[in-house]
Amino acid sequence: MEAATLQSTTMLGSALPSIPWEERPVGNSDVVWRYSGNPVIPRDAIPTSNSIFNSAVVPFNDGFAGVFRCDDKRRVMNIHRGFSKDAIHWEIDPEPLQFSGDPEVTAFEYRYDPRVCWIEDRYYVTWCNGYHGPTIGVAYTYDFETFHQLENAFLPFNRNGVLFPRKINGKYAMVSRPSDNGHTPFGDIYYSESPDMEHWGKHRFVMGTKGGWQSTKIGAGPTPIETNEGWLLFYHGVLTSCNGFVYSFGAALLDLEQPWKVRYRTAPYLLAPQTLYECVGDVPNVAFPCAALTDAPTGRIAIYYGCADTVTGIAFAQVDEVLSFLKANSEL
Amino acid sequence: MEAATLQSTTMLGSALPSIPWEERPVGNSDVVWRYSGNPVIPRDAIPTSNSIFNSAVVPFNDGFAGVFRCDDKRRVMNIHRGFSKDAIHWEIDPEPLQFSGDPEVTAFEYRYDPRVCWIEDRYYVTWCNGYHGPTIGVAYTYDFETFHQLENAFLPFNRNGVLFPRKINGKYAMVSRPSDNGHTPFGDIYYSESPDMEHWGKHRFVMGTKGGWQSTKIGAGPTPIETNEGWLLFYHGVLTSCNGFVYSFGAALLDLEQPWKVRYRTAPYLLAPQTLYECVGDVPNVAFPCAALTDAPTGRIAIYYGCADTVTGIAFAQVDEVLSFLKANSEL
Amino acid sequence: MEAATLQSTTMLGSALPSIPWEERPVGNSDVVWRYSGNPVIPRDAIPTSNSIFNSAVVPFNDGFAGVFRCDDKRRVMNIHRGFSKDAIHWEIDPEPLQFSGDPEVTAFEYRYDPRVCWIEDRYYVTWCNGYHGPTIGVAYTYDFETFHQLENAFLPFNRNGVLFPRKINGKYAMVSRPSDNGHTPFGDIYYSESPDMEHWGKHRFVMGTKGGWQSTKIGAGPTPIETNEGWLLFYHGVLTSCNGFVYSFGAALLDLEQPWKVRYRTAPYLLAPQTLYECVGDVPNVAFPCAALTDAPTGRIAIYYGCADTVTGIAFAQVDEVLSFLKANSEL
Amino acid sequence: MEAATLQSTTMLGSALPSIPWEERPVGNSDVVWRYSGNPVIPRDAIPTSNSIFNSAVVPFNDGFAGVFRCDDKRRVMNIHRGFSKDAIHWEIDPEPLQFSGDPEVTAFEYRYDPRVCWIEDRYYVTWCNGYHGPTIGVAYTYDFETFHQLENAFLPFNRNGVLFPRKINGKYAMVSRPSDNGHTPFGDIYYSESPDMEHWGKHRFVMGTKGGWQSTKIGAGPTPIETNEGWLLFYHGVLTSCNGFVYSFGAALLDLEQPWKVRYRTAPYLLAPQTLYECVGDVPNVAFPCAALTDAPTGRIAIYYGCADTVTGIAFAQVDEVLSFLKANSEL
Amino acid sequence: MEAATLQSTTMLGSALPSIPWEERPVGNSDVVWRYSGNPVIPRDAIPTSNSIFNSAVVPFNDGFAGVFRCDDKRRVMNIHRGFSKDAIHWEIDPEPLQFSGDPEVTAFEYRYDPRVCWIEDRYYVTWCNGYHGPTIGVAYTYDFETFHQLENAFLPFNRNGVLFPRKINGKYAMVSRPSDNGHTPFGDIYYSESPDMEHWGKHRFVMGTKGGWQSTKIGAGPTPIETNEGWLLFYHGVLTSCNGFVYSFGAALLDLEQPWKVRYRTAPYLLAPQTLYECVGDVPNVAFPCAALTDAPTGRIAIYYGCADTVTGIAFAQVDEVLSFLKANSEL
Amino acid sequence: MEAATLQSTTMLGSALPSIPWEERPVGNSDVVWRYSGNPVIPRDAIPTSNSIFNSAVVPFNDGFAGVFRCDDKRRVMNIHRGFSKDAIHWEIDPEPLQFSGDPEVTAFEYRYDPRVCWIEDRYYVTWCNGYHGPTIGVAYTYDFETFHQLENAFLPFNRNGVLFPRKINGKYAMVSRPSDNGHTPFGDIYYSESPDMEHWGKHRFVMGTKGGWQSTKIGAGPTPIETNEGWLLFYHGVLTSCNGFVYSFGAALLDLEQPWKVRYRTAPYLLAPQTLYECVGDVPNVAFPCAALTDAPTGRIAIYYGCADTVTGIAFAQVDEVLSFLKANSEL
Repeated sequence: MEAATLQSTTMLGSALPSIPWEERPVGNSDVVWRYSGNPVIPRDAIPTSNSIFNSAVVPFNDGFAGVFRCDDKRRVMNIHRGFSKDAIHWEIDPEPLQFSGDPEVTAFEYRYDPRVCWIEDRYYVTWCNGYHGPTIGVAYTYDFETFHQLENAFLPFNRNGVLFPRKINGKYAMVSRPSDNGHTPFGDIYYSESPDMEHWGKHRFVMGTKGGWQSTKIGAGPTPIETNEGWLLFYHGVLTSCNGFVYSFGAALLDLEQPWKVRYRTAPYLLAPQTLYECVGDVPNVAFPCAALTDAPTGRIAIYYGCADTVTGIAFAQVDEVLSFLKANSEL
Repeated sequence: MEAATLQSTTMLGSALPSIPWEERPVGNSDVVWRYSGNPVIPRDAIPTSNSIFNSAVVPFNDGFAGVFRCDDKRRVMNIHRGFSKDAIHWEIDPEPLQFSGDPEVTAFEYRYDPRVCWIEDRYYVTWCNGYHGPTIGVAYTYDFETFHQLENAFLPFNRNGVLFPRKINGKYAMVSRPSDNGHTPFGDIYYSESPDMEHWGKHRFVMGTKGGWQSTKIGAGPTPIETNEGWLLFYHGVLTSCNGFVYSFGAALLDLEQPWKVRYRTAPYLLAPQTLYECVGDVPNVAFPCAALTDAPTGRIAIYYGCADTVTGIAFAQVDEVLSFLKANSEL
Repeated sequence: MEAATLQSTTMLGSALPSIPWEERPVGNSDVVWRYSGNPVIPRDAIPTSNSIFNSAVVPFNDGFAGVFRCDDKRRVMNIHRGFSKDAIHWEIDPEPLQFSGDPEVTAFEYRYDPRVCWIEDRYYVTWCNGYHGPTIGVAYTYDFETFHQLENAFLPFNRNGVLFPRKINGKYAMVSRPSDNGHTPFGDIYYSESPDMEHWGKHRFVMGTKGGWQSTKIGAGPTPIETNEGWLLFYHGVLTSCNGFVYSFGAALLDLEQPWKVRYRTAPYLLAPQTLYECVGDVPNVAFPCAALTDAPTGRIAIYYGCADTVTGIAFAQVDEVLSFLKANSEL
Repeated sequence: MEAATLQSTTMLGSALPSIPWEERPVGNSDVVWRYSGNPVIPRDAIPTSNSIFNSAVVPFNDGFAGVFRCDDKRRVMNIHRGFSKDAIHWEIDPEPLQFSGDPEVTAFEYRYDPRVCWIEDRYYVTWCNGYHGPTIGVAYTYDFETFHQLENAFLPFNRNGVLFPRKINGKYAMVSRPSDNGHTPFGDIYYSESPDMEHWGKHRFVMGTKGGWQSTKIGAGPTPIETNEGWLLFYHGVLTSCNGFVYSFGAALLDLEQPWKVRYRTAPYLLAPQTLYECVGDVPNVAFPCAALTDAPTGRIAIYYGCADTVTGIAFAQVDEVLSFLKANSEL
Repeated sequence: MEAATLQSTTMLGSALPSIPWEERPVGNSDVVWRYSGNPVIPRDAIPTSNSIFNSAVVPFNDGFAGVFRCDDKRRVMNIHRGFSKDAIHWEIDPEPLQFSGDPEVTAFEYRYDPRVCWIEDRYYVTWCNGYHGPTIGVAYTYDFETFHQLENAFLPFNRNGVLFPRKINGKYAMVSRPSDNGHTPFGDIYYSESPDMEHWGKHRFVMGTKGGWQSTKIGAGPTPIETNEGWLLFYHGVLTSCNGFVYSFGAALLDLEQPWKVRYRTAPYLLAPQTLYECVGDVPNVAFPCAALTDAPTGRIAIYYGCADTVTGIAFAQVDEVLSFLKANSEL
Repeated sequence: MEAATLQSTTMLGSALPSIPWEERPVGNSDVVWRYSGNPVIPRDAIPTSNSIFNSAVVPFNDGFAGVFRCDDKRRVMNIHRGFSKDAIHWEIDPEPLQFSGDPEVTAFEYRYDPRVCWIEDRYYVTWCNGYHGPTIGVAYTYDFETFHQLENAFLPFNRNGVLFPRKINGKYAMVSRPSDNGHTPFGDIYYSESPDMEHWGKHRFVMGTKGGWQSTKIGAGPTPIETNEGWLLFYHGVLTSCNGFVYSFGAALLDLEQPWKVRYRTAPYLLAPQTLYECVGDVPNVAFPCAALTDAPTGRIAIYYGCADTVTGIAFAQVDEVLSFLKANSEL
C-alpha cells in the first residue's frame, strides 16, 4: 500500500494532511503498526518529570496542541499542556495546568490520563480527577491558555471518561469506566448523556470484559472517530498474568445514534506491548491509547499511546483497514 | 420521661401521633432504645421469603405503607410492598414490585435495601438496583399500586441512595455511597443534585469513615429528618473485626441548605448489634436502619432497621435528645 | 398429610419402616422440616470430642450403623463408627476407625466428612482424606468391625466424594467436588467412573454454582437415592456473605444412566441454617447433609446433616413431595 | 473431688483462700470448667462501655484490683482500673487510666488487653499500646491510684506482652507475640529479658503454632504461675475456619530458669468457645484468658477470660490436675 | 570438553546424533548452557500468534516434529503441530490441532503447555486442557496428521501432566501437578498409573516445594529421560518475589521402578531467567522446559524451554554431568 | 562543576580522596547521578552466586572492604566479605561469613541486606537475620577475618537495621523498619537506643510513608552521614503499581542529637529505577541503597545500591548539593 493511494470514503470529519505518518513496514501485516521513532516523548521531556505518557493531542491553529500526563519525581500525577508543529516533537509546559472554577472542584488531589475533544466551539479536557477518589474531571478551553473546570461528571470511582465529538440526540455523550479506589481488577465501558455537561444520566452499559487480552477490564481510549458505519472506538483491555496486568488495545464500532450498542468488536488485540519501551518501565507491559489524529480524506489515523506508563509512542492505521479487520475478527 | 410530656420545637414536618412508640425502659440511659416486641417482621412473613429486613415504611392514607426487602429462598434479593394499620403488624405482598418504564432499566437483576421518600406529590422509592453492577434505582408511585421506574441515578457501583424529602436550592437531592462490585471494604457518603430526577451532578463529598464502629465504611439510612438546626441523618457504620463486618448506626446533622456540610456527627454509635436477633442470622452482627417515622409535635422517632440481614426491628428516639447527644458527642 | 397415608411409587429400594420420622409441623409448608429433637448428637457424645457432625448412617443388621466425623479437642479431624437401634440415639466408638491397607495410603493425616454406601455385598466408606492435601479416601467393611482401605480415588485436591449405590453401565460411579488446599472459594460437582474402585476416569462435569445460596460452591451430600425418574441428589451450596460462608442444601435429579446429566435442580434451597444450633457453633451458619435413610414404600426420607460444624441434626422429607417441588422450582 | 481436700505441693506462691471458686460440676470431666455465674462482668458495667473483656485482676489489699479492657461506644479501646471484694463483683472506674511519663510515650492512640503482675514491690501493668502500631506498653503502680508509664518494651508490632512475676537470672522477663499491623494471621511466643524494664534483648523463640486449635497463632495469657516443675503458662490459640478466627486456650510448662524451653504443651485445648456468651458477641467464638488468681496451698486457679470480645468470664482449675493433664496430653 | 569425546554409558535409549548442539562457551561452568541462537522460535512465527513457547518436540521420520503452544492475538491458548529438519528452524502449522474423539472431551475451551511422548507404537500428546477448569488432556497420533483424543486423565484442576516413555510395572505412568483454577500459589508433583490410558489411580506424592527457587510450586518438564540410575526429570520451580513469580528449572532423579521415590534433587537451579528474552515478555522472568531431545551414545541433551511466556529457547546439557551435579548438589 | 573545585564545609568525618568518583554528565541536572560503569558487581562475581546486590562497603586499611549479599543458585540468601583497592573492582570471598557467638543466635536461617558501620574501635555488621522470622542480626569485626555475632537487636519481624556511626547521648543508636513475615506492604522508620549493643529500648517513630514513590513503605539505607546540619540519611521508598513494587530512594536530614526528629525530607526521589539493569532482573524496578563512601573535605559521596535485586551499582552526589536540594524540596 502506498500513502499516495490512501483514500477513505468511510471516515467523516476534516482533512488533516499534516498528521504524523509512516508507511507500514515491509513484511508487516498488522493493522496497526508502530512509528519507527518511538518513543516520541521521553520520560524526561520536562525537568521535573518522572514519566510522560497516556496523553492527548489535537489539531490546534496551524499545528497541534495537547494535554500530557506528566508524573513528577514525587510520583505525583498531573497534566500539562504542550504544543507541536508536527505532532511528533513537543514543547511541554513545565508547569501543570491551572483551572478556574469552583474551588471545591478545582482543588488538586491528582490528575491523570487526559483526553481532549473538540465539540462545537471549544476543546473539552476530561481526565481522571482525584476528588475523594478517582472520578472524571471536565474542563474546557478555547485557546490552551485558560482552562475552566466544570463539575466532575460522576461520583467516584471512575476512570477513562471519553467524550464524543458531537452531541448525540441533543445531548453531550461520554463513555467511562466505573472502578474502585485501587488497582481495580474489573471494569466495563458505560455510556452516559448530559443536557448541560454538568448533570449526567441515562447511563447505559456498552460492553464488558471478554476472554484473553481483555479479560480483566476494558476502557475507552481516544475520542471516538465518526465513520459512516458507526463510531470507531479504540479501547484498552487488560489481562492479568501471574506477574501482573498486561495492557493491550483493540477497537469497537458503536452505533452512531445509540452508541451503547456495539456493532463489532475485535477479538484479537490490535497492538500489545512487545517492544522494549512498552515492556520495560515504571509499569511493565502497557500500551494505553488516549488520542488519535485523523485525516478524513485518506483515512489515516495516528494513535498516541502510553508505553509502560513511562513514555509516549505513536502507532498508525488506516480507517478502512481497521473497519475491515473489525468486521472480519469480531466477537461480541 | 413520660410520653405525655414529649414535645419538640425542633423537628419540622407533620404530626403523626400513631407511630409506634414505647417508653425508654427504666434503667436504660441510651438515646436510642429497642422495641420490646422486636423483631416486628419475622423472616418468613411471606411464604417464599428467606428473610425480610433493610426495609422502608412511610405514612400512607390512614395507616402505613412500605417497601420491604424480601430475599427469597433462592436468596434472590427483591423488594415488595406492604401495608399496616399500626406500622408494627405488616401485610406484605408475596409478589415483588413490578415497574413500568424503559425495559433496559426495568429489567430485573436484583433489587435490595429500599428507601421510600415523599416529595411534593408522590412517593419515591430508591434502592440498590442491579444493572451490570449495583447502582441506585429510582421509581415513584402515587398509590403503592403502580410504580414507574425512572433512570438509574448513577453509574454503578453504588448503594444506599437516600433522597431528601424536599428540593434544596431548587434541585432534587440525594446522598449515596459509591462502592465496588463486591463486599466493598470502603465507603463514604456523597451528595448529588438533579434538576429532573434523571440527570445528576454537582457531586459533593459529605463525610467519610472515622475510627471505631465507623472505620470501614458508612452509608445513609432513613430519609433525612428536617429540624430547625439541620438535616438529621441516621447512618450506618461498619467496623471490620477479625471475624467480619459489624454494622452499627449513629447520626449526623447536615447543613439545611448545603447538606454536604456536616455540622455534628456522633463519635459513639447510637445502636450496635447486641441482641440475639441482631447478632445471629444470615449475617451476624448487623443493625442497619432504612426508615424512620416521625411525629413532629412530640419529636418522637421510630427507626426501622434490619437485624442480622434476617429480620426487621424498631428502635425509638426523641429528636431533641438525639440532637443534644449529637452536639455533646460530636467528632468531625 | 398423615403418616398413615404416605406411600410412594417413585422411590426404588427397600422398605425400612424403622427410620426416624416425625410429621411436618402444623403450619409449616416446607418440603424439608427439622426433627424437633435436634440436635440428635451433641458435640460431646464421646469424651474426647470437640464436635460431631457431617456424619453418615446406614441400616445395619436389625438397627443402624454409621461413620461419624468427630473432631477431637486438639481439633484433629477423624472418623469413628457408631451404632444405634433407632438411628436417633447413637453409641459412638471413642476410638477412631483403623484401616488395613497399603501404609502409604492408610497413614493418617486427617479424615473427615464421611459417607457410607452399600454396594452389592459390602459397605463402602468414602471421606475427605489427607494425603499431601485433601482427597477422597475409600474403604470397605462388611461388618463395621474391620475396614480395608483402598487407594485414594483421586489426586488431591478433592472433597465430598459420594458413591452411587449400584454400578452404572457396569462401572462404579462417584461424584466429587474438586477443590484447592484451603477454604476453597469455588467448587462444582463432577462425575467419575471406575472398573475396579481404584482407577477412575471418564470424568464428567455435572453441575456448577448458580446464584444465591449456591453461588460460591456446591457439593454432593448423601448417597444418591434411586427413583424411577432419576437419581435424587441432595447437595449443599455455599453463599459468601460479608461475614463468611453460609451452607444450605437443595436437591437435583440426575439422569439414571447418564448421571452427569441434570434433569432438575432446585433454585430455592430446601433447608438453610436458621436455628440456633445451625447458626451458632464452631462454624456459624452451616447445614451440611451427608446421609439419608429411606423407606421406599412410603417414600419417607430422614436426612442427617451437620449443624454449625458442631452437632448433628435430622430433617425429614417425602420423596414425591421433593420431586414435585424439584420440578416446580427447577432452574438449570 | 471436694474443695476441702484440695491441696497442692506443686504451686509456689501465697495462699489466697478468698479467690472465686466453684466445684467442677457433676458429670463434667474437663480439666478447666466454667463458673456457673458467667459472665461475671457484663458489657455495660460502666455507662460508656460497649464491652468489657480481656482484663486482668490481682489480689490487692484485703480484696482485689484489676485493669480492665473497656471498649467504649465509639469502639475506642482503653483500659480502666476496678476493685472488688470477692473478685466476682467489680466496681470499674468509668474513667480510663491516666499515666505519668514521657508524653511521647503516654500519648494515647489505643490501649487494650492489659495484664497486671506483681514484681518485688509494685504492680506492673502491660498492655497492647498504640504507638504508630501496636506494641507493648509498660507501667507500674503501687496503689492503683497513680500509674507511671515506662518506655514501650518493643518496637511495633507486638501484642500480648506478659511479664514473669520475678526476675530470672537477674533480669526482668517477658513473653510477647510479635505481629503485624492488622488482624495478624500468624503469631508465635517469644521471650525477652531486660536489666532495667526499659531496654530489652536476648530475644528467644519459645514456641510456635501447631495444628488444630492453635494453628494460626498463639499468645501468652495470664502471668505465668510458678510451680516446682516449671512456669505454668495458659495461652490462647487461634484456628481459622472458613468463617473466621476461633480463640481457645491451653497450657504449657516452661523451664524455670530458661523459660524459652518448653517442657510440656497441651495438644488439646483446655477451654474452647462453646457457650452462647462465648460464641455470640462482637467477635464470635472467642475465649481469651488474661489473668489468673491462685491459692497455693490448695492449688486452686481462677482464670479470667474475655468472651466473644464482649464480656468477661471465669473458669476454674486445680494446678496438679492441670500439670497431670499437660504431661499426659503434651505434643511439642 | 569437546563434542568429539562426549560419550555416556548412563543414558538409555536411541542414538539421535542430529539433535541441536553447541559446546559450552569458554569460561562458562554451568551444567546447563544456552544456545547462542536463542530464541529459536520467535513470537510471530505464524501470522496469528502472539507468542510461541512451552512447546514439545520429538524425533519424527528423518527429522523432527513437535506440538507448540501458540497463543493467538486474542490471547487464546492453543496447540499447533510443527516440523523441522534440524530441530532449530521450525515450520509451524498456522492451524491449531484438530482432534477426533468424544465431543464432550474434544470441545475446545483452551489448550496449552503440551508434551509429546513416544510410547510403544505411537506419540502421545498431553497438555493442559480446559474442561470446566484446567486438567490433563491426552491424545495420540501415529503421524502428526490425525490426532485421537482420549478421556482427560484427571479431574480438574491439574497442569503439567507428563507421561513416562514406557510402561512401568505394566501400567502407563504419568506425573502431574494438581492445582487450582487460577494462578495457583502452590503445587507439588504426583505420580499416577493407568492400565488403559483412561482410568488413572494409585496416586503417589513424588515431591513438593522446597526453599528458594522452588518454594512456591514445582512441576514436571520434559518426558523423563531413562538412565541406568533412574529417571532424569527436569522440572520447573517457582519463587514468589514481591513482583511476581520467577520460573527456573532444576532436575531430579527418580527411582526406575518406583518413580515416586526421589533419589536426588538439585538444591540449586540449573537455569534461571537471566537473559533479556527470558526476563522481558508477556510474563517476565520465566524459563519453563517442556521437552528434551537426547542422543544416548553421547549423552547430549537439548532442552526446549519457554522464555518469558513469549518465545522458545534451547539449552544444552550432558547427561553424566547432570547426574554428577545432581548427586553433588542434592537436597531431598 | 569540576572535581577540583568540590569542597564542603558541611560534612563531618574523614578525608577519603580515593573513593570512586565520576563527574555529573553534561546535560544532566540530577542531584544523584549514576556511574557510567554500572553495574560494578555482576550477578556471577562468585561461582555460586545467582545475584550480588544490596551490599555494604567501608574504607579498610589502604583500600576498601565490604559485606555483600550473595544469593546463591538455590536462592539462599547469605552475606560474604569482599575487598577492593578502588571500591569498584571487588574480590568477593566465595564462602559466606562465619560467626562466633551463642549457637542459638548464630544458627543460620538466612542473612541478607547487610550494612557495615565503624563505631569507635571496630566494624559492626547489621543485616536481616532469619531467626523464626526476619530480624536484625548484629556482629562486629576488627579485621574482616573473624566476626563475632551478638544478640539479635530486636524481636522479629524487622528489616533494614542501620547503626549510627557514633553513640548519641551515650547510647548506641539504630534505625530499623519493623515489618511482617512476608513481602510486607507497610513499613516506617523507627529509632532505638542501647547501652550495650544487646538490649534496645526507647523506641521512637522517625518517619512514615508519604504519597508517590514512598507510599507503601520506607527504610533506611546507608549508615547516616554526619553533617553540621544533621544526619543525612538516604532511604528507600516503595510505590505499589498494578504490577508490583517499585523501589526508589531519597534522603532525609535528622536532628543530630534527637535523630527521631526529621528536619527535612525529599518529596521527589533522588534516584528511581530507570536503566535496564535497574528495571530488568530477578525483581524488576529496584534501586536499593545500602552503603555510601564519603570524602569529607570535598563532600563527595559514592552511594552503593542494589539494582533489580540482581547486581550492584554506584551513584554519586555531593553533600552540599544534596542538602540544598533537600531543603528546597522537603515535605514532612
